[in-house]
Amino acid sequence: MAERVYLFDTTLRDGAQTSGVDFSVADKRAMAIALDKLGIDYVEGGWPGANPTDDAFFGDAPTLKRAKFTAFGMTRRPGRSVGNDPGLAALVNSGAPVVTLVGKSWDFHVDVALNIPREENIAMIGDSIAHLVSLGREAIYDAEHFFDGYKANPAYALACLKAAQDAGARWTVLCDTNGGTLPHEVARIVREVTAHFPGETLGIHAHNDTENAVANSLAAVEAGVRQVQGTINGLGERCGNANLISVIPSLMLKMGFDTGLPVEDLRHLTGLSHLLDERLNRAPFKHAAYVGASAFAHKGGLHVSAVEKDPRTYEHIPPETVGNRRRILVSDQAGRSNVISRCRDLGIEVPPETSKIDALVDLVKSREFDGYSYDGADASFELLARRLFGEVPDYFTVTSFRVLDERRWNALGKLVTLSEATIRVTVGDKQEMTVADGNGPVNALDAALRKALIPLYPSLDDIHLTDYKVRILSPQDGTKAVTRVMIESQKANGERWTTVGVSPNIIDASFNALHDVICFALLKFGG
Amino acid sequence: MAERVYLFDTTLRDGAQTSGVDFSVADKRAMAIALDKLGIDYVEGGWPGANPTDDAFFGDAPTLKRAKFTAFGMTRRPGRSVGNDPGLAALVNSGAPVVTLVGKSWDFHVDVALNIPREENIAMIGDSIAHLVSLGREAIYDAEHFFDGYKANPAYALACLKAAQDAGARWTVLCDTNGGTLPHEVARIVREVTAHFPGETLGIHAHNDTENAVANSLAAVEAGVRQVQGTINGLGERCGNANLISVIPSLMLKMGFDTGLPVEDLRHLTGLSHLLDERLNRAPFKHAAYVGASAFAHKGGLHVSAVEKDPRTYEHIPPETVGNRRRILVSDQAGRSNVISRCRDLGIEVPPETSKIDALVDLVKSREFDGYSYDGADASFELLARRLFGEVPDYFTVTSFRVLDERRWNALGKLVTLSEATIRVTVGDKQEMTVADGNGPVNALDAALRKALIPLYPSLDDIHLTDYKVRILSPQDGTKAVTRVMIESQKANGERWTTVGVSPNIIDASFNALHDVICFALLKFGG
Repeated sequence: MAERVYLFDTTLRDGAQTSGVDFSVADKRAMAIALDKLGIDYVEGGWPGANPTDDAFFGDAPTLKRAKFTAFGMTRRPGRSVGNDPGLAALVNSGAPVVTLVGKSWDFHVDVALNIPREENIAMIGDSIAHLVSLGREAIYDAEHFFDGYKANPAYALACLKAAQDAGARWTVLCDTNGGTLPHEVARIVREVTAHFPGETLGIHAHNDTENAVANSLAAVEAGVRQVQGTINGLGERCGNANLISVIPSLMLKMGFDTGLPVEDLRHLTGLSHLLDERLNRAPFKHAAYVGASAFAHKGGLHVSAVEKDPRTYEHIPPETVGNRRRILVSDQAGRSNVISRCRDLGIEVPPETSKIDALVDLVKSREFDGYSYDGADASFELLARRLFGEVPDYFTVTSFRVLDERRWNALGKLVTLSEATIRVTVGDKQEMTVADGNGPVNALDAALRKALIPLYPSLDDIHLTDYKVRILSPQDGTKAVTRVMIESQKANGERWTTVGVSPNIIDASFNALHDVICFALLKFGG
Repeated sequence: MAERVYLFDTTLRDGAQTSGVDFSVADKRAMAIALDKLGIDYVEGGWPGANPTDDAFFGDAPTLKRAKFTAFGMTRRPGRSVGNDPGLAALVNSGAPVVTLVGKSWDFHVDVALNIPREENIAMIGDSIAHLVSLGREAIYDAEHFFDGYKANPAYALACLKAAQDAGARWTVLCDTNGGTLPHEVARIVREVTAHFPGETLGIHAHNDTENAVANSLAAVEAGVRQVQGTINGLGERCGNANLISVIPSLMLKMGFDTGLPVEDLRHLTGLSHLLDERLNRAPFKHAAYVGASAFAHKGGLHVSAVEKDPRTYEHIPPETVGNRRRILVSDQAGRSNVISRCRDLGIEVPPETSKIDALVDLVKSREFDGYSYDGADASFELLARRLFGEVPDYFTVTSFRVLDERRWNALGKLVTLSEATIRVTVGDKQEMTVADGNGPVNALDAALRKALIPLYPSLDDIHLTDYKVRILSPQDGTKAVTRVMIESQKANGERWTTVGVSPNIIDASFNALHDVICFALLKFGG
């Protein structure tokens, strides 16, 4: 019988502290429901009383089926009674069945940051927890700076935990608030703490300041704690919190713990990770453990042929377990098997004739020789393959274009640089000539091209370029250097795709990538 | 006396396997020199014989002062003698003083992937290492899939290590190739291995597939190994390799190991991390441990007032230790000491007046706010400082320029794209107007500018642009994206320098960087 570890998600509270992150009430609601659906035990929604978003969110809290909805706040203020503390009142009034209270456990902080007697801090913890318990709430004590506190003054740090437990806290959570503790220290300290308190009442809350938040969480569980706090995708202030997306499958698949969710539900992890990125309007991190697009990507001949013999040769788990999939990258060693499995990955039906596959392999090789790279440019690869297989219509033909960039003094006596593009396009038997300006030559070209095409293909209207990258290849050979441009685009519905263009001329290379942007959009989303 | 741990960087070899990463020879050279300057013990440059880039890089290897330049390859092929193996010959001929050979240590791989007798694999390891040692090379054995192999068949995995050690390998490195091993398993297995082989001959090579690569590396050192392999910023295939930027300060500042580099040199870590990002044309990861822009960022309120009382309240190390700085929204007084030490590094005499330093700090801050980044652009920083200190003459003034790019059908019926630039320059009381073409707008602008200046400044004749990089920066609000261009230039005598230009318009940004290229050359090498 596997031992139970409880999962506590603080994406919506500690994760909301991330610089640049700003959850709306709708974001919080969507994430809380998704976390509940996965089977997380505790969903901490925020800090009622601290900001209007959290007040609105708690004021109309989502109905969770399984997870316990949790409010966060502080122990009572010094020199004040629990009945007369506005912070505690806001927590009680929030209606949340579980309340997490953070309180000091490092004597240095009590002395320097609070500047109060150490006994008063202990009384603040005990009084506040007892108050919540008396009102029927499940209470959790987050022992702030516990590891630094324990290293400095173990007796005091333990006395803080004891105050919480004696007052009826369900959990006391050991927080590595500054994130500087290493896994071997966490293991040792947790082992010492479990000599005083049962592991079934202890939790771990780790930060990633040494890139060890996941390891610290696993080390604490290995040493006896039975609750793990963390966030989706490791969101959190500074370097982030422990990433539950990595913690959960390691606990279940590799350490044999029961987290309350069935193993087959791990397949929702990739989707949950992407959901948060979508809510935050971020591109998913390709190299994320377990769920990243590159996590099961194989490059080069030897690895690919071994994986095809037996995936265990180069995969630590079957990617489908966590909702991810294998990706075979086309690289300079492009071989038949790479190209075929790449096609399958992209849902391109491979024709039975081997001559067509061979033609595609040859085409990819010659393109790569010219400087194309299809590793990060799925859309251009798909167009290349489907064009060869005769599946891409001639949507339009650009017969010529011209771009002018000029730096000169304007009427106000300011030095300005202006870009203007002129383009001639044929669609069927129609000819269009358009001109547009932009804040650069590529922007102007994009504007002119779409000005010509949108009247015929209105679906192109809600596409915008989200990233533009330029690389000079073989710069050591000054005369023969070529430019590679990669463009990432996004449709209003959130779909993203990347295209590549190569030419000795950067404008030409950019135009080639831009051409693929439009063709791919027409192929996928219709005219 | 602190124990010595050796640092082995594989950014240029295993890091080059990252999907989307494509090092040029110039990138490899710049990174190798920077790694050597920091004080890394081994710099693995690539795989000679495997691709044209690595052949070119090894063919003209950089001279390293302290680091041992290392080539990577495979043990001899099955059924072939070491003297008759083209792979080994390429390694020997590469001239690298150290060679790392990867070879199997998991019986399952020998059976399934190689499909050869297990004894033959052991012979391949021993023969290949002995061959290199007999030719005077320092040999390293990378035991591929060691942890999976040890779990499956410890006797066979250990026999592989023994073959390498008996043949004279300086190091045998325990590789977690698939990245699925957890820290507590690494600790246990390493402890068992050190019962057979001294820790001073063992290394660790960890991958981040469970987000534990750093923890696995530290656990292995804690358990006895004395070499750590990793990459800058955790580059590497799938989820990446162990991030040396995180490993090094934890080893030195928190575990008390000696890595051969003085503690005060840790302040170069942030710059090294940014240098790689610049080379790869990536935005630095803000939440990176130790070196990220958010790693020591404090949001207002309680944290800030505590940090102002004593930084240890919310910082696990002083940020300056690793070249980072505290970021507080209100009063950000960092920068001053950074700027002063940057000037000293570049040999710029700092004026005694504090007002001049303050003006430079303000200027750098406002430029960085606009999107400039001086981490990888020493030449532009030096020009900025010396201009402010009144040390840079007005060599020339560009009053206007115009660039035309045109794609059209030429007389031979071929679609061609041509670029042509016109420029007006004033030097003293002389006016010049020149026109030139090029294989792109920047090339044409460079040609036109130099056509005007070379008659007056002949020293500009032997300069050429060796690299050109473009990045689109999207500020938080997303309304006003700007383009940052970095140009690397080289004089015939081998000197290289990098300049930066920023503008909403890519042509304008390129011109700004180009302008600095010429000014820096005139400042350094005279008219």
